[in-house]
This record gives sequence, C-alpha cells and structure tokens, in this order.
Amino acid sequence: MPDPRPPMKWWGWGDPSRTVELPPHALEVVRAELGVPGERNRPAGFEQVQVSEPALPRKAAQSLADLLGPEWLHEDRLSRVTHAAGKGYPDLVRLRAGDATSAPDAVVYPDDAAAVRAVLDICASERVAVVPFGGGTSVVGGVEPVRDGNTGVVSLDLGRMATLDGIDERSLTADFGPGMRGPQVEEALGARGFTLGHFPQSFEYATVGGCVATRSAGQASTGYGSIEKLVCGLRCVTPSGEIDLPAIPATAAGPGLRQLLVGSEGVLGVITQATLKIRPAPQERRYEGWMFRTFDDGVEAFRALEQHGIVPDVARLSDEDETRLSLALAGGDSLRQRAGLRYVRARGYSGGCLVVLGFEGERTEVARRAALADRFLRRRNGLSLGAGPGRAWERGRYEGPYLRDALLDRGVMVETLETAHEWSRLLELYGAVRGAIHGALQARGTPGLVMCHVSHLYPNGASLYFTFLARQEHGAEIEQWRVVKAAACDAIAGAGGTITHHHAIGRDHAAWMPQEVGKLGVAVLESVKHRLDPAGIMNPGKLLPADVIPG
Amino acid sequence: MPDPRPPMKWWGWGDPSRTVELPPHALEVVRAELGVPGERNRPAGFEQVQVSEPALPRKAAQSLADLLGPEWLHEDRLSRVTHAAGKGYPDLVRLRAGDATSAPDAVVYPDDAAAVRAVLDICASERVAVVPFGGGTSVVGGVEPVRDGNTGVVSLDLGRMATLDGIDERSLTADFGPGMRGPQVEEALGARGFTLGHFPQSFEYATVGGCVATRSAGQASTGYGSIEKLVCGLRCVTPSGEIDLPAIPATAAGPGLRQLLVGSEGVLGVITQATLKIRPAPQERRYEGWMFRTFDDGVEAFRALEQHGIVPDVARLSDEDETRLSLALAGGDSLRQRAGLRYVRARGYSGGCLVVLGFEGERTEVARRAALADRFLRRRNGLSLGAGPGRAWERGRYEGPYLRDALLDRGVMVETLETAHEWSRLLELYGAVRGAIHGALQARGTPGLVMCHVSHLYPNGASLYFTFLARQEHGAEIEQWRVVKAAACDAIAGAGGTITHHHAIGRDHAAWMPQEVGKLGVAVLESVKHRLDPAGIMNPGKLLPADVIPG
Repeated sequence: MPDPRPPMKWWGWGDPSRTVELPPHALEVVRAELGVPGERNRPAGFEQVQVSEPALPRKAAQSLADLLGPEWLHEDRLSRVTHAAGKGYPDLVRLRAGDATSAPDAVVYPDDAAAVRAVLDICASERVAVVPFGGGTSVVGGVEPVRDGNTGVVSLDLGRMATLDGIDERSLTADFGPGMRGPQVEEALGARGFTLGHFPQSFEYATVGGCVATRSAGQASTGYGSIEKLVCGLRCVTPSGEIDLPAIPATAAGPGLRQLLVGSEGVLGVITQATLKIRPAPQERRYEGWMFRTFDDGVEAFRALEQHGIVPDVARLSDEDETRLSLALAGGDSLRQRAGLRYVRARGYSGGCLVVLGFEGERTEVARRAALADRFLRRRNGLSLGAGPGRAWERGRYEGPYLRDALLDRGVMVETLETAHEWSRLLELYGAVRGAIHGALQARGTPGLVMCHVSHLYPNGASLYFTFLARQEHGAEIEQWRVVKAAACDAIAGAGGTITHHHAIGRDHAAWMPQEVGKLGVAVLESVKHRLDPAGIMNPGKLLPADVIPG
Repeated sequence: MPDPRPPMKWWGWGDPSRTVELPPHALEVVRAELGVPGERNRPAGFEQVQVSEPALPRKAAQSLADLLGPEWLHEDRLSRVTHAAGKGYPDLVRLRAGDATSAPDAVVYPDDAAAVRAVLDICASERVAVVPFGGGTSVVGGVEPVRDGNTGVVSLDLGRMATLDGIDERSLTADFGPGMRGPQVEEALGARGFTLGHFPQSFEYATVGGCVATRSAGQASTGYGSIEKLVCGLRCVTPSGEIDLPAIPATAAGPGLRQLLVGSEGVLGVITQATLKIRPAPQERRYEGWMFRTFDDGVEAFRALEQHGIVPDVARLSDEDETRLSLALAGGDSLRQRAGLRYVRARGYSGGCLVVLGFEGERTEVARRAALADRFLRRRNGLSLGAGPGRAWERGRYEGPYLRDALLDRGVMVETLETAHEWSRLLELYGAVRGAIHGALQARGTPGLVMCHVSHLYPNGASLYFTFLARQEHGAEIEQWRVVKAAACDAIAGAGGTITHHHAIGRDHAAWMPQEVGKLGVAVLESVKHRLDPAGIMNPGKLLPADVIPG
C-alpha cells in the first residue's frame, strides 16, 4: 500500500526506528517522587492488537475505490490502527494495551479538493462518517473515529495534499495544501528565504490543515502570532459545497467567517487550502535563560515586558516545580550544569523559576530587543543565565512526546493541559488548577507532581501550560485520568479561564463548551454545522457536546 | 422628551449650531473642475419634511412604554427624523430634500441589557422590526429602518447605555456599554491615564457598540489595530437569548464566536457590552509630512515600512489627485504653505503624493520609531516635509463630513468608498476602481474628480480609500449615485478586493456579499441569523442580500 505519511509508532510518538529510554537518574527521580515501581511496561505486540472487522458498506467502499483508485482506499490493519486515535494520554494507554477498537473502517487518501468533495458526496449519501486526519497528533481525541449512528467511519488522510501552492513574496503570504507537515513547510519556505514561524511541539508531524482546524499556537506564538493570526485565506470543502474565502488583509464585510472555520475541527468540513502569512527567515535566532526567585515575580516581569511592547518571539516561564523537575530529569551532572546551579544558589535564586526567552529576526533588531529585555528583566530582579539554558530548551523543544513514551514505559501517568486568562486573574487560575490536580491525584491515592509554565504572552493575558505526573493506577488508568482531567477542567471553568488555549476541544473538552461559549453559543455552532453538514457525517463526537447535538 | 444623544443636524453632520461654508477658493476649484454652477442648494426646512404617520401597533407601544417608562418611547417627529437614516450620501440627499419617509415608527431607549432583552421580547412577539442605533453615523444604510413584512419598526437607541463599566489596569482592558461615544471613551479612559486608540472619522458621534458591530478600523488602526483586534469579550442580546463571551486573551475552543458577533451589524442582536484592549495614554504624539514623486513609489515605501516592522500608528498616502485637490481645497495662500510648495517644486516633487505619518507612545520609543522611518523613507526617495502637514492633517481629521455638507450645499456630489487587498494586487485594484468611477461619471455626463489614499497598513496588504466629487444631476441624484457606486463595487469585486475595509455592509453592499464570501458563506450567516432571530425582526435588509434571506 502506498503511504504518503512519514512513519510513526502506532502506540506512541515518533519514528518507530527511534527508541527513547528514561535515563537512569530520571528513573530515580520518578521512583523517589511518585512511588513508581519502575518496572518495564511495554506496549502490546502489534499482532495482539484488537481491531474490529472493517465494516465499511461495500457500496461505499466500491465508490471510494473507483473514485480514488483502489490503492488509496486502505482497509488493512496497520493503516486502520495508525488512524485509530490521536496522541493523547488515554489514546496511548489504550493503544499500548492493544486496544485499537476505535479504528476506522478504512482510510481514504484524496489528492485534491475535488476528490475531497467527491469523498464527502459518497459518504453523505452512504451515511459514512468522515474524520479528517492531518498529522494525527491531537491530544484531545480530535481524530478518534466515531460512527455516531452512521453505517461506517473512514479517516480522510490529507497526506497526499502536501503542497506549497504558491508564495506571494510581495504580500508575504503562501498557499498551502492541508497535508503539509511542519518540516515540509519550513523546508519549502526556507528554500525561498522565508519562514512560517509556527512551531508547535508536534511540529514534526502536525499539518497546516490540522493546525488551522485546531487553532494551534506554536511555541513562538508570542512573536509570530498563533495560527489564527496567520490565516488570511481559506478554502473549506463541506458536504454542502465549498467555502472559498480569498486572502485579503482585512475586511469589514460582516461577521468573520475565516475565524469561524479556524478551529472548526473537521466538524464542518475539510480545509483544503490555507493562505498564511509568512516572514523572511530570521538572520539570527537568540535564545537565553533567566531566573526569577518566584513564579509571581516572573509573571509580573512577563506582563510588564509584553505590555511595554518588548515582545520576545519565544517566552517561557516555568514555575518552581517545573524548574526543579526539569533540572532533575535532565540530570545536573555535567560540569557546566553544576557550575550553573552553584551560580544560581550563590545569587539567592535556589528554588526559583527558569525563564527561556527567544528573539528571532534581523541581526540588529534581535540585538536591540534582547538588550531592551535585558535591562527590563534585571530591573525586575531577573538573573541572566546566558545562552546555555536557551540552547538546551531549543534542543529539546520537540522532545516532550518522546519523553512521555519513556515515562509510560515505566508506569508513569503523564498528561498536559492548558488554559489562558487575563493577567489580573492568571495567578488565581494557576492556584485553582494546580490545587485541583493535586487534590484529585491525592484523592486517588496517587499523589503527583504538577508543573506549570507560562508560554504565550498577550497584552491582556497569557497561557498556562500544566504537566502532571503520577503513578499509574494499574487496570484503572483511564478512570484515573478521567477523574483528574475533569477536576482540572472544572477548576479552569470555575476560575473563568478558557478550557483550552491551543490543544482544541476534540472529544475531551466538548462537555465544557457550554461553559466556554454558553448554551446559545453552542446552539449557534450547531446551526452552522447543520447547514454545512446536514447528514451529520463530519467528525462526529467532537467539538459539540453530545447532549446538544441536533438529531 | 429626554434625549441622551448629543445634538446632530437632522439633514447633515455635526452640531446644528455649527455652520460650515465652502471657502471661496474651494468654491472656485469645484466650479472650475466640475462645472458646478455653485448656487446655494439649501436643505428643506424641518416643517417641510415628509414623515409617514407613526404606525407602531398600540399593543406594542403600550408594552414598550410600560417597560421603559413613557418618556423613553419617542414617537415625536424630531426623534423619528433623526433616526430615519445614517449619514451616507444618499441618506443626506433624501433628507435634504425633505424625504424622511424611512423614519421608524418610534425610538426606544433601554438603559441596560435586561431592558434590551425585554424590548426584543416585545418586538418579537408583536412582530416589530428593531434597528439598533448607536451614533447613527453609518454611511452604508446600516441604520435605515426597514419593516420587511413586520407590523412596525423601531429604532433601538443605545444612548442611555453610555457607561464605562470597569477598567482592568493589570490586563489593560476596559468594559464599555455600547452607547459610549468616542469622546466619552477617551475622556473616561484619559482620566485614568489610558486610551482606546480608536479614532474613526465619525469619532465625535460613533459609539463602541456601533464600531464593534461594523468592524470599524479607525485612523490609527495601523498602530492600535482595528476594533476586531481590540475586542476581548462581548455580550450580545439576541431574540433567542444572550451570548456572553468573557474577556480572555486567546482560546482554541472551537470556531471564533467573538469574531462572528463583530461585524454582525445588528442583524443577530444588540451588543450590550464590549471588553476592549486599552493602552497607556501616549506621552507623545508626533505627526509629520512626507512627499513621494508617485503613488507607486509611496505604496512601495509603505509596504517596505510595514513589512520591516517599522509600523507607524497613523500612515496615510494620498495619490496625485488627492494631494493636488487637498492642497487646492485647503487654499495655498499662507506664506508658510507657499514656501512649502516652492520647496516641493524645487526638489522635483511637484505633482507628487503627500504622506502623513503619526507615531504615538512613550517619548523615547516615538523618537526611535520616527528616526527609523525617517532613514527608511529617505532611502526610498521620500522627501521630508516636517511637522506642518502632519499637524494640518491632525487638525482636520474629523472635518470630512462637515466639508461634505458644504459641498452638498453647492450641488456637488461627494461620496467615499473603501476596499483592501494584498500588496501584490493593490495597484491593480486602485486602477480598476479609479477607472470604473471615472468611467461611470463620464458616461452620465458628469465627469468627476477621483481621489484615493492608502491609510491602513498590514504586513500582507493595505486599504484604499476613494473620495469622488462630481456635479449633482439635479432630480436624479440618487440614480446617479447608484450607478457610480455599483460600477465601483463591481470593479472592486472583479479585482478581488474586499467590498469594504471599514464602512461595513449595511444596505448598500449587501448585494455584493455573495461575491465576498460565496453563496455558501451567506447561507452560513443566514443559518446563524435564523437561529438567533427566528422571527426576523433584527435590522432587516442589512448585511444579508435580500434574495437569499430565508422566508
């Protein structure tokens, strides 16, 4: 079977040929802090994986094979298992246990917008659910196949639509096919001297279409802007036809339909092209480390930095626990690191909070901005750590999901979630969510580690990104996760934060949508869904809470 | 009758106590260039104005009077005439001729969101159309009362909801009632050391709610961002209930409902509160003039300026005709102006294009940015004219509508329209629209003057703002306008520009919505409208083209 996608472990993250082990010192840390026995907990063998029989109605299968060519309708086991779920913690728990019963009946690979339209036509008339699949990196259940009363479900893989359709060098925009993955985007733009500047942690696999459909932010969003700010034009094929919103810099022509399609998570249609803002590739990239004595100090410094317009491209402030754990997991063994820790201690910043700042752009501008930030942070009691921690962060910026696999291998639950709020309520939100996660883990008898960082700055607020680790409850991993996740989400909603800053809604956050936008807000989205997808085939079970989805 | 609105000429712009005359030299210019006889053409006396009998069903009138108190239900002639139309050219032509037959049956003045909700309930059950009315400054027919099959029509004046509900100094946001007018906003914020930075030409009357509902840009949008970028939170009361979207800095929680309400032009509901980003009041405001030899040179310089991040807060480039006419209408009589013209001529910039740049903010930052722009523009053959032209523009920044009345007094048709496009297609759009207006005026035997400026910059494009003057066709003013306007709109759509950059859709642009967002895009808006306003009472005849409004 031809496969346009790069290889990816079916049970975890990354190229199957790369194995990641928890280093011995890190294993010691999780043993000591979480009471994890640390025995190996390997994923099931592929041959043991449970998948239901493919049940795509033959008429639909025949029509799809006729349309795309039989080689682009995959009903084989591997294709189905690799499209059975995204890469969230519960997904990985199930897959590692050999449960791929959520696999789609088939995977289809259209190669252009017309083929997408024809696939949707066939699926609408045969009542087959369609799950758009970009990089498959959703951590909120966004690509999990759900039948929802349809006769079957297919994953619509956009891997063949990985095209750079044009660059407008005068307007600094580029047209992308939805299947372009991060490295493909940067390689194609880089060859012409440009960058998109969009670097989510899932960069290696995430696609343009997926980023647009999920309102992805990217680690450099403070400088480059999140994907919603990069989108100028969009084409979206829906079961009711195509919406084509050309690239214009601004308009007052009524409600913002572009922003209605951004974040639509495949429930309205399939994004088949996106025109995004691009920038000249940076002449220089400068990353550096700073330390603050407390998280509060760091938050105040970040607020002042952003509100004074001294906007770094990357800005990241770890709380005390994340700083401590990051150092411990990285292992403070090298001479350089030990010297760094001695310096931090000598200056009275022990137990403090690590900051990474990144500046990208023209050489003189990078120097000017970094110098401004330097003066600014020193005045606010920041301690400069030089380039070392910045470089270390850069090297490891896409390593999180690999490390997660290594932790799962050792029986450690590891999950991340994120929110955002106004500056005036950020620390209150921080305390509420941190407390809720700690409390829920404690209540289950698996006290955990809860870490947090601020990583996307806005004039009026910032995001909070939580990572938490605990000993897995053997045999009740999903239940354990569900309870803790719900406690965190309730705490976020209670404190008035957004239920997600950049992971999107998917399956996991749908129940909180009425609190996010109100019942009438949900009803508005339903009316749009009903107009564009009257048969209800587009990515069922995502975004809209089930109990209010119209019949 | 109590009236919360500041006085405004019923037949034109501004305080009735202020009369504006065309200066003699300007009259000479329009006589010479347009063949206008120049006789006085005064508006009808108020007693001659035709208004239909108020026809609000008595039950609705009684319920509204009971709800609001009889003093807040106005059925008198003056209230109705001042709510009969916005301030577009055709509106003024009709009103000056004594035609106020579009007047609403009554004007209601709720004082809070609950009262708005109750008004909508009464109107929905009595089938009375509701036209939200902020400053009444629409130039696209956005506040014109239309019954559309309902039994009556009321203007819902938001003048009593002119409140600053709170400032969050840490998050740099403020909550506004919808009826806050520009000067009230700046006065209330200024007292606390802040500014909104939103200065449309209609500033003196335009309201927060109206700006949000129409995607207003403001003259300083290049720096401060247009209203869509200032909106963090919104409350909107619709006939189906309230949508409350709290102020958060960013979210990935599905499609962008905030941006669906921004630009909704009263057809979905009434914006009852907006949380907007604010900024520290600028320490310094520096405005300066520049000259380029050609419009193309100026456009290229603006593009380079914006794309290199040297973003002025105000940036305005007049084409050759606008530069020439502005100087002629202003009258180049003073010694200083004559000296300036000699300097321009001596440097070889005669017949060139005037630029106004404005920088606002911290003193050192203003100096730095202005110095950067200075080096940048000189290298691109810009000629610095110093502070004089900048100050002159600042003094006259809100004078356009007053001058329009003076021109109408002399039988001159004067209309403005605007669009935006990517840099790569901006000059093509410019040529197409300019040619279309010239051609249409010529074909009617009233050859005109067509002027244009670029005034809102984005990394990927800019806006074009056209002003055209011609001799009015006596007795066929509206027909003359309609033909020219349609030719301009067709040219805009044909060249792929947006049908409006900041005037909104209203009545005048509704026919071009299918070209702007596609028929399916319009259908999506209809489905939202139908969900929120099932009885079809909200601002009928606006935004959505009539032939596709569902029954």
